[in-house]
Amino acid sequence: MYDIIIIGAGPGGYVAAERAGARGKKVLIIEKEHLGGVCLNRGCIPTKSLLNSSKLYKKAKSSTQYGVHAENVTFNLSEAMAWKEEVIQNLRSGVAFQMKHNKVDVVEGDAIFSSGKKVTVNGKDYEGENIIIATGSSPFVPPIPGADGPLCKTSREVLNLEKLPASVVVIGGGVIGLEFASFFSNLGIETNVIEMMDEIVPFMDKDLAKVMRREMKVINFHLKSRVEKIDGSKVHYTDKKGKAAIIETELIILAVGRKPNIDSLKDSGLDIERGRVKVDDRMKTNLPGVYAVGDVTGESLLAHSASRMGEVVVQQICGVDDHMRYNAVPWAVYTYPEAAGCGLTESEAKDKGIDVKTASMQMRGNGRFFAENGKSGGLCKVVVDAKSDVLLGVHLLGAQCSEMIAGAAAMIEAELRVSEIKEIIYPHPSVSEIIKDTLWML
Amino acid sequence: MYDIIIIGAGPGGYVAAERAGARGKKVLIIEKEHLGGVCLNRGCIPTKSLLNSSKLYKKAKSSTQYGVHAENVTFNLSEAMAWKEEVIQNLRSGVAFQMKHNKVDVVEGDAIFSSGKKVTVNGKDYEGENIIIATGSSPFVPPIPGADGPLCKTSREVLNLEKLPASVVVIGGGVIGLEFASFFSNLGIETNVIEMMDEIVPFMDKDLAKVMRREMKVINFHLKSRVEKIDGSKVHYTDKKGKAAIIETELIILAVGRKPNIDSLKDSGLDIERGRVKVDDRMKTNLPGVYAVGDVTGESLLAHSASRMGEVVVQQICGVDDHMRYNAVPWAVYTYPEAAGCGLTESEAKDKGIDVKTASMQMRGNGRFFAENGKSGGLCKVVVDAKSDVLLGVHLLGAQCSEMIAGAAAMIEAELRVSEIKEIIYPHPSVSEIIKDTLWML
Repeated sequence: MYDIIIIGAGPGGYVAAERAGARGKKVLIIEKEHLGGVCLNRGCIPTKSLLNSSKLYKKAKSSTQYGVHAENVTFNLSEAMAWKEEVIQNLRSGVAFQMKHNKVDVVEGDAIFSSGKKVTVNGKDYEGENIIIATGSSPFVPPIPGADGPLCKTSREVLNLEKLPASVVVIGGGVIGLEFASFFSNLGIETNVIEMMDEIVPFMDKDLAKVMRREMKVINFHLKSRVEKIDGSKVHYTDKKGKAAIIETELIILAVGRKPNIDSLKDSGLDIERGRVKVDDRMKTNLPGVYAVGDVTGESLLAHSASRMGEVVVQQICGVDDHMRYNAVPWAVYTYPEAAGCGLTESEAKDKGIDVKTASMQMRGNGRFFAENGKSGGLCKVVVDAKSDVLLGVHLLGAQCSEMIAGAAAMIEAELRVSEIKEIIYPHPSVSEIIKDTLWML
Repeated sequence: MYDIIIIGAGPGGYVAAERAGARGKKVLIIEKEHLGGVCLNRGCIPTKSLLNSSKLYKKAKSSTQYGVHAENVTFNLSEAMAWKEEVIQNLRSGVAFQMKHNKVDVVEGDAIFSSGKKVTVNGKDYEGENIIIATGSSPFVPPIPGADGPLCKTSREVLNLEKLPASVVVIGGGVIGLEFASFFSNLGIETNVIEMMDEIVPFMDKDLAKVMRREMKVINFHLKSRVEKIDGSKVHYTDKKGKAAIIETELIILAVGRKPNIDSLKDSGLDIERGRVKVDDRMKTNLPGVYAVGDVTGESLLAHSASRMGEVVVQQICGVDDHMRYNAVPWAVYTYPEAAGCGLTESEAKDKGIDVKTASMQMRGNGRFFAENGKSGGLCKVVVDAKSDVLLGVHLLGAQCSEMIAGAAAMIEAELRVSEIKEIIYPHPSVSEIIKDTLWML
């Protein structure tokens, strides 16, 4: 009998295993493919590795303004892919080491969760006091005629591309779509993004999204456009004016979203609603002792949300009350330039009826940003509760803002007031200072 | 009659002017050279601009591991200097705009501060209810025989170099010395650093300093070594074993420290102690209505400390009680790789008799760091109060950690406990996560 059986070793599952094991719990984790899950093996990590390569290529080609010249700059896809593979192998070993170090049993295979305490893998039954469902999600293949054609690939397949195409059409202007669009456009490849909504990255502040499109202007964005069918190399779509149009391309990336992996859970007695396992803010399902974390809950499809959910579950199992809060979950898009945010946008605050004040500052007004990025665009926008003066949201576009947003998450989670933040000393010169400078504008 | 007269328009002075002007105070700021002071014109900003150029050069040459190849990578010093100059001009206009926007009067000239309320510039007298002394500091030229030789330059002169030398000797292994050493060594120039103490950057955690030297191993570090004399191109020094040695070089950089600018204050009646204007934690001097901020106080020779001190003064003048705290002042060294820290080091805590627990984590254990930096070294070390569980210090070496340290400053300033920090969600994959992961090791 295990204290905890975890189904799925992605960032929800393996972090829960690590934390529980470190506290002396007897833990079993079951993974059908590779430790690390989608995030490590075919999501966050490999895309970031490839994006970094493409950014290095772009910078090597375009640093003359700063006095740096290079000739015959070339991008070797198989080398970039080999490095990505080495990164995956290395981090996978890291997770395996953590499992061993924390005395977590690991079993490979498909888990069948049938009753409240029992999980069957490879014909063998295991019993656990507590079960954590962390089965993750898969790319959603949209019901577009021809979407199963030979040039159509999901994120999973693109990560194993063997030859760079001359042109790419990305269907879907969300985070995954934009990261691939950035990768290919950084390499000088003609890139089109087709998005049904009226703006890219729907949850992003509209002001940021606008600057982002301007900064990524080598990409052709087709907003309010609907793909009607795919015919070999031809993507047929209806543009924002309702006109039929065609783009011919060598690669079509399907990036319209992801769907929770619930197929194996259908006979488990779990309450499944709108294709996801229903949980409360303590990650409890309808079955006693059974929790669900990460993408399978559909609550917040982000690796770090899954990890935090895993920690919330372990805390409870260890007798510490804890619950999941979504008001300070940061996000980052690792495009060139990067975007990141945490907390409420102005329009979300309005939708919730919260009276807010906001301020924005152009990144080029920041000393370090200007020194390192010249006249490139970038933006910092802050959202503050008008009554309490508490910081509710920080939204960033430009440079390495993915590394700055954790600071905002800390301040929002700690419910700091603007007057308190003004007393925090930011290093000068740093791009991070812009958060404080923008708050001083209020 | 002004509400406030500020002597010196560096980051202490101009930030105070901006904040006071924004609140309707009648402000005069006096600057003898350029708005922005040393930081903007011949310190932080120009060095960061040049360092960025040298990092781009180094990356363009050494990204084959990531699949990026470039031929004939060259560094054009005059272009890098021209860009640095454009950055300075741009930011200087920015400060001028802020002065105008906040209705701050600006006068150019040498200020003579003679009595409690009066300041004379270019023969004209100005009176202020409050005076803020923000005269800054200057490079300290060490009393080494031959230090006035033709190859010897302080930071100020190096920033106007017209030709790259084949070799450099940097005297002083502090922040300024290391940043120049990094600039030249990034460009492939033979670089020697001679430091009297037994470790570089004395205030840095010893574990970090060790990794830093290892990562910058193209630089020859001579620790516990004393320069005896300079004879043209020959630097004579005594090495750590007490043996006399000579390095022949084309450029000698004097970076042994800075001294507060107090010459113009000697007859002011201000209490000057050990070469600096004495202040309390509200930046009050011995004279009523006279404050001093920034380098001239010798308290913390960092641009952002100066700015915060300026804000502390303005708060008080506006009737809000505020005082200066030094426990959460971050610092950053913009070398390749970068180092940054905030709060107490382990040894500082011990010196203060505080019972602490610490944890360290290698950066290469972090997914994003490994994907972008491979097997490069890097370190995160945290210092926590053993009794209260409050975070006291965060110390980072690697990648763009200068942009991550503001988050640590926020957490230390807010006096967060480890248990609270564990509930903050950090974005994945980001290097910033390593702070949380290191805290989980405790």
